[in-house]
Amino acid sequence: MADEVVLLDMWMSMFGMRVRLALIEKGIQYEYKEEDLMNKSELLLKMNPVYKKIPVFIHNGKPICESLIIVQYIDEVWGDRSPLLPSDPYERAQARFWADFIDKKFHEASKGLWFNKGEELEAAKKDFFEALKTLEGELDHKPYFGGENFGFVDLALITFYNWFYFYDTIGKFSIEVECPKIMQWGRRCLERESVAKTLPDTKKLCEAALELRKKIGME
Amino acid sequence: MADEVVLLDMWMSMFGMRVRLALIEKGIQYEYKEEDLMNKSELLLKMNPVYKKIPVFIHNGKPICESLIIVQYIDEVWGDRSPLLPSDPYERAQARFWADFIDKKFHEASKGLWFNKGEELEAAKKDFFEALKTLEGELDHKPYFGGENFGFVDLALITFYNWFYFYDTIGKFSIEVECPKIMQWGRRCLERESVAKTLPDTKKLCEAALELRKKIGME
Repeated sequence: MADEVVLLDMWMSMFGMRVRLALIEKGIQYEYKEEDLMNKSELLLKMNPVYKKIPVFIHNGKPICESLIIVQYIDEVWGDRSPLLPSDPYERAQARFWADFIDKKFHEASKGLWFNKGEELEAAKKDFFEALKTLEGELDHKPYFGGENFGFVDLALITFYNWFYFYDTIGKFSIEVECPKIMQWGRRCLERESVAKTLPDTKKLCEAALELRKKIGME
Repeated sequence: MADEVVLLDMWMSMFGMRVRLALIEKGIQYEYKEEDLMNKSELLLKMNPVYKKIPVFIHNGKPICESLIIVQYIDEVWGDRSPLLPSDPYERAQARFWADFIDKKFHEASKGLWFNKGEELEAAKKDFFEALKTLEGELDHKPYFGGENFGFVDLALITFYNWFYFYDTIGKFSIEVECPKIMQWGRRCLERESVAKTLPDTKKLCEAALELRKKIGME
């Protein structure tokens, strides 16, 4: 029996992009279903009753939620092609640590840019660069986070890369100036076909995000 | 060469307890180092420069941080005895989802009981029971979260169980009345030697926690 793979997703989501990227890396065919988050589908509510969020990965009818958990699942089930997690347990633990840091610290800090103005925005900028510079310190002079090859941590962070233009715009700063190594790393990742295919156009994303920000009364 | 295993921990920590519990399950000898969180050791700051938090698991000189990541590492390295994660990838993904839910939702909600008074405490109680009842719904009539055997999700939640008396005390509620299945499950887990050995006395823990709460000006 062929695998039936469905992805409930939304084009702007950096979390959804992680799953799409993993699916391209593994060469897995799937059905993509765009969700309208203002009017969630019955399927989404049924498949992710706890969080009611995208992405949801449905494999032969069974749902898996939370992007990093989905990507680990994909890597374990389709392990023979383009391994994402390192095979060594210690390196695997380190990869999980940094991917978790991206969600817990960097993503949380980047949300601060969305929802704040004035002094609070200044505080959010500080948190944002503290998290991004910690990541830059970990990357250091390596081509990828795990070393010589594109892997789990790269996948977890690269889907934020095309949001950087939006962050630059609302924060009135330059990530290129503050974190040049991260930008170099991003350009290196973009040379990879799976990444180039997954990341939407940065200006289109920025316009859509500015529009959303206006709707929630932040402009 | 014998493995050198060191744990930087603090007796009250439910996260530290997870690691101690996993080490007993696996029959691993280790050196325990109690940290004074008001005066952190040089070793802790060196081994966990990102979060500066316990627990830190040091295996042959190399540190691993974040309790769920440590427990997965232990399970992968000492995989031959008392497996904690299920062997099936889908069940493993579900175990990771619920362990993550415990940290993201249940633990966050329980922190709300520590740091709030009055109306905010009432809101925190609501969040607390919403999370705990979601877990109770997932447990349902199974003996353990994963089914017939004690596993990763049980380990992730059981170290909160001896904190319940403290939560009852400060919240002026009864978890036994609100979530009887969770309490039954807790008693079942406590019949396991590793759990009984790991969990500190519930009254001693409550007294120490009330003392701490006084220090931070919450009584």
